[in-house]
Amino acid sequence: MAQNIYDKPEFFAGYSALPRQVHGLAGAPEWPAVRAMLPDLAGKRVLDLGCGFGWFTRWARENGAARALGIDLSQNMIARARADTTDPMVSFEIADLEKLVLPRAGFDVAYSALTFHYIEDFGTLAATVRQALTPGAHFVFTIEHPIFMAAAHPHWLSDEDGRKTWPVNGYSREGERRTDWFASGVLKYHRTVATTLNSLIGAGFAIRQVEEFAPTAGQIAENPDLAEEVERPMMLLVSAQR
Amino acid sequence: MAQNIYDKPEFFAGYSALPRQVHGLAGAPEWPAVRAMLPDLAGKRVLDLGCGFGWFTRWARENGAARALGIDLSQNMIARARADTTDPMVSFEIADLEKLVLPRAGFDVAYSALTFHYIEDFGTLAATVRQALTPGAHFVFTIEHPIFMAAAHPHWLSDEDGRKTWPVNGYSREGERRTDWFASGVLKYHRTVATTLNSLIGAGFAIRQVEEFAPTAGQIAENPDLAEEVERPMMLLVSAQR
Repeated sequence: MAQNIYDKPEFFAGYSALPRQVHGLAGAPEWPAVRAMLPDLAGKRVLDLGCGFGWFTRWARENGAARALGIDLSQNMIARARADTTDPMVSFEIADLEKLVLPRAGFDVAYSALTFHYIEDFGTLAATVRQALTPGAHFVFTIEHPIFMAAAHPHWLSDEDGRKTWPVNGYSREGERRTDWFASGVLKYHRTVATTLNSLIGAGFAIRQVEEFAPTAGQIAENPDLAEEVERPMMLLVSAQR
Repeated sequence: MAQNIYDKPEFFAGYSALPRQVHGLAGAPEWPAVRAMLPDLAGKRVLDLGCGFGWFTRWARENGAARALGIDLSQNMIARARADTTDPMVSFEIADLEKLVLPRAGFDVAYSALTFHYIEDFGTLAATVRQALTPGAHFVFTIEHPIFMAAAHPHWLSDEDGRKTWPVNGYSREGERRTDWFASGVLKYHRTVATTLNSLIGAGFAIRQVEEFAPTAGQIAENPDLAEEVERPMMLLVSAQR
């Protein structure tokens, strides 16, 4: 079972104050890039894996989806997600993605944001998602980039010219990584780019687009703190199709 | 035009002494992984882009290929490649891959080893290769990994535990990288993993397999110097299919 750090009070308090939780999709700098990778949602049944407060789940419905289901392990998050909508075609369920059971061909689009790095066995999850999708359906997700996750001590360094530099080690050693992020010992699972893509291909998906998020010049002008994201990607964005 | 560093005498002398040039494919630790990604070559017309001394070109023919053509920019390398075979179905040509003209559907397999990081415009080359392949044909290649290439000063560091650590910066800044490798100012072109894969998809290839080469435990036991390759990938291996 995935570690349910999100229901620890100190974690939840810190996490809830993140710009992307306060402002929703508009608070996530990668959102324009992710949105450009999404298919038209009109009339589609949309699945949101690791939905958190349900920002995307509700957005999907507001942007034409016939139905939208958000799933998350966190009772706190699902409670707030449910409280934030009265739309009967938007629903939220508590479930562990590592033990997920989904109706066959029950969805036309699957989406996930920054969740799969909490999942140990991505191949099984990819197969579960694939059987839940209709032929031609898109599966679009973001995940922490393995360049960001690999190192034993992931933090900025300076190179000999003073340039912000990110350390990589243990890249080929997949598995547990522990970091301190609002709480100590948050458990994540490092996988190479190759393993993520090969797991999708092995489950029967075609890779349609891969992005390694970097902010645009306009985004950096508006928010100079984003400049460091050019030095190393924090997020991998993938569009696959059944 | 790609920089022809290989015909500079001091470079050529150093390069020619590399294990993979002296011992051929068996001298390249990634070769077993690459070989596992290759389709059956029996009866196939095989293209080898950046063939160097022609080790793979000849191997393809010895392993069933009907014909094998090796192409390289370096006159020195093509001269030696030609001198090393008398097989009339193995041929070698001097050409700049950035201005390559290939017969439509003239090949059943395309291969390239550690060459495409010298190419500025990979999208154009991918389109050229695609039109030269028959439907269903495989395109298998290795390229320096962008994690290896990105940084302004790419060399090993130590982290706070003394672990070998590789610096990454400028990952999203694609384009020229200059390194000193047997000669000063060797010109390479950095591209993200995403750009390499999206260029292939855009040219009409399906991605079949991606590997980020790491040595096996057996390889490390035999050659302990390879252990550092586990810390960060030096090579990206891709199998795509028309």
